[in-house]
Amino acid sequence: MSTADLDTRMMARALQLARRGRYWAMPNPHVGCVLVRDGHVIGEGYTQPAGGNHAEIEALTMAGDARGATAYVTLEPCSHRGKTGPCAEALLAAGVSRVVAAMEDPNPEVSGRGLARLQAAGVEVSCGLLQQEAERVIPGFIARMRRGRGRVRAKLAMSLDGRTAMASGESQWITGPAARQDVQRLRAMSCAVLTGVGTVLADDCALTVRPDELGLDPASTARASVRQPLRVVLDSELRTPAGARVCSVAAPTLICHRQGLAASGPVLPAGVETLTLPHGTQGLDLAALMAALSGRQCNEILVESGPRLVGALLQQGLLDELIIYMAPTLMGDLARPLLQLPLQRMADKVALELTDARRVGQDWRFTAVPRH
Amino acid sequence: MSTADLDTRMMARALQLARRGRYWAMPNPHVGCVLVRDGHVIGEGYTQPAGGNHAEIEALTMAGDARGATAYVTLEPCSHRGKTGPCAEALLAAGVSRVVAAMEDPNPEVSGRGLARLQAAGVEVSCGLLQQEAERVIPGFIARMRRGRGRVRAKLAMSLDGRTAMASGESQWITGPAARQDVQRLRAMSCAVLTGVGTVLADDCALTVRPDELGLDPASTARASVRQPLRVVLDSELRTPAGARVCSVAAPTLICHRQGLAASGPVLPAGVETLTLPHGTQGLDLAALMAALSGRQCNEILVESGPRLVGALLQQGLLDELIIYMAPTLMGDLARPLLQLPLQRMADKVALELTDARRVGQDWRFTAVPRH
Repeated sequence: MSTADLDTRMMARALQLARRGRYWAMPNPHVGCVLVRDGHVIGEGYTQPAGGNHAEIEALTMAGDARGATAYVTLEPCSHRGKTGPCAEALLAAGVSRVVAAMEDPNPEVSGRGLARLQAAGVEVSCGLLQQEAERVIPGFIARMRRGRGRVRAKLAMSLDGRTAMASGESQWITGPAARQDVQRLRAMSCAVLTGVGTVLADDCALTVRPDELGLDPASTARASVRQPLRVVLDSELRTPAGARVCSVAAPTLICHRQGLAASGPVLPAGVETLTLPHGTQGLDLAALMAALSGRQCNEILVESGPRLVGALLQQGLLDELIIYMAPTLMGDLARPLLQLPLQRMADKVALELTDARRVGQDWRFTAVPRH
Repeated sequence: MSTADLDTRMMARALQLARRGRYWAMPNPHVGCVLVRDGHVIGEGYTQPAGGNHAEIEALTMAGDARGATAYVTLEPCSHRGKTGPCAEALLAAGVSRVVAAMEDPNPEVSGRGLARLQAAGVEVSCGLLQQEAERVIPGFIARMRRGRGRVRAKLAMSLDGRTAMASGESQWITGPAARQDVQRLRAMSCAVLTGVGTVLADDCALTVRPDELGLDPASTARASVRQPLRVVLDSELRTPAGARVCSVAAPTLICHRQGLAASGPVLPAGVETLTLPHGTQGLDLAALMAALSGRQCNEILVESGPRLVGALLQQGLLDELIIYMAPTLMGDLARPLLQLPLQRMADKVALELTDARRVGQDWRFTAVPRH
């Protein structure tokens, strides 16, 4: 096998490993690392939960002796000291002679410094192999680093005629078990799950990850069980009842309300945080919310709400992706719309790029990106 | 090759030929025939336009001498004298020694008599090879013969959020050129295209087949150009303007209106027919309309209308299939619904079976059958 073929193959393996970390590595990016010497894999690893080892350290630990090896990493090794020591130094100390990275770290604290440090110390360095694939593994982290806002995705479930609930609000269940399982996985991959108080009051949703509903293999289930996403409720007037399931101890909760609210709301359970947000064009300032979530290192934000919040996010350019589960049913024209979006002319219609379409059980799932 | 393998292969070829007749054979079913002797194809054919040869005669003409041959036919050879002589007799006269049919003719005038006649004359006869596939080639004809009503399909174009037009009625263009080409082919396969006067007044649609917009090879385009579907307008009060494009000489037109209408409507162009229909539960009696269209030997009826007519057909159990083109856009909640269907509870929702889903250019096409 040529060096180029080996490189591609080993990076593909590193990407595979990286994805294993997607349920638990946050707020860190999930990275994969493979150590190869004389054409043989001598160590591999992926990012452990926050505070635990990075991928490189895992791989070095497995290898024991990594002198003269080539390290394949899906993201540039870090040069700064976070909760763990810098990985670039660890690779140097281990005597690794070549480092192949898929992409530079978009983190301004690293951003080429990790690779530069290695190169300065005499290590052969290259960057950019399978970069596009690597970027697709950690889009939320990249978005947060590059623009100061994580990736915001809205999950919606609708009938074939684009309806999400009957006029009465009744909506359980539009989609089948496979789609609901898929949503559990989306939640497990998310740093935060965002909803509005209307949805809380109507559905008393828990918005937690329920490991037994993920439909994953035991190892993945275990990784998806070490944490819960932050539940974020947009609740201008603090109407969330203290006994709401979204306030349970099962997961952290952040309730966002308007400024100048008299402290007359319910006494929320200990552990439930509140956040004051300024008033925006429609209700609470959503850009300020996203900035606050970025400050809390949220890479992936999943919106599970009614049509108003999704419509507002879309109109304000704060929505990166729509994930729409479409059930093979018709709910009729009295039922509730997919999203509130008051457009008048065909010229105003929102163009989407369908990036994925697939069957999920009895339903179809569409992934669409607004073309701004 | 075993006899069974040869039989299957030849019937598959006959089915392929049958489909060539789908644009012009109506009201006859489009049938394919292959004549084989000593493992060699000696003749083949498919149904010609009404009044022309049936598939068997085409194949016999090509073969010249068909003594001792096996005839593969996608539908039982006819035993009755229609516009042409009975094919069973022609096969007998030609000295064919074996006939393999995919299915019995659902036409009560034939219904086994063609095969029985052949068998009585000493021909080896079998029936049922690739029957399911054969039934899928002529669903409209089968439906009309078995239940006295052709297959009724509604074609709809919508945004991802299930909207078919802006509140103002503006709707051009939701879907892309590939989807519109696909619709042209649906029209070309249809005996009748049904719409409401509202659509006529709003869009001044011609509802004709435009051969240059079919996107077919020259031979298929030629076959799709020999006829136009009957345009049927539901127009209770006879509001269709005399100058409407739907009244053009390019294709036949039937305007359906209510009983007891004073003859004060527009003077319709010569050639435009009118039909009086009784009053039904919602506007004109749609079941009576379908009976009338069956009387006119309409196998395939394509509905291209607004949300009201499609909703009414669905609610009255008169819709066999929905063909929905979905564009990757959002038109918002003020826009018009996919279909008018006043449902209140989730238990009322209409379950569909998605029988096909595929990309058509930039859009997606879903084929769905209501589960009654």
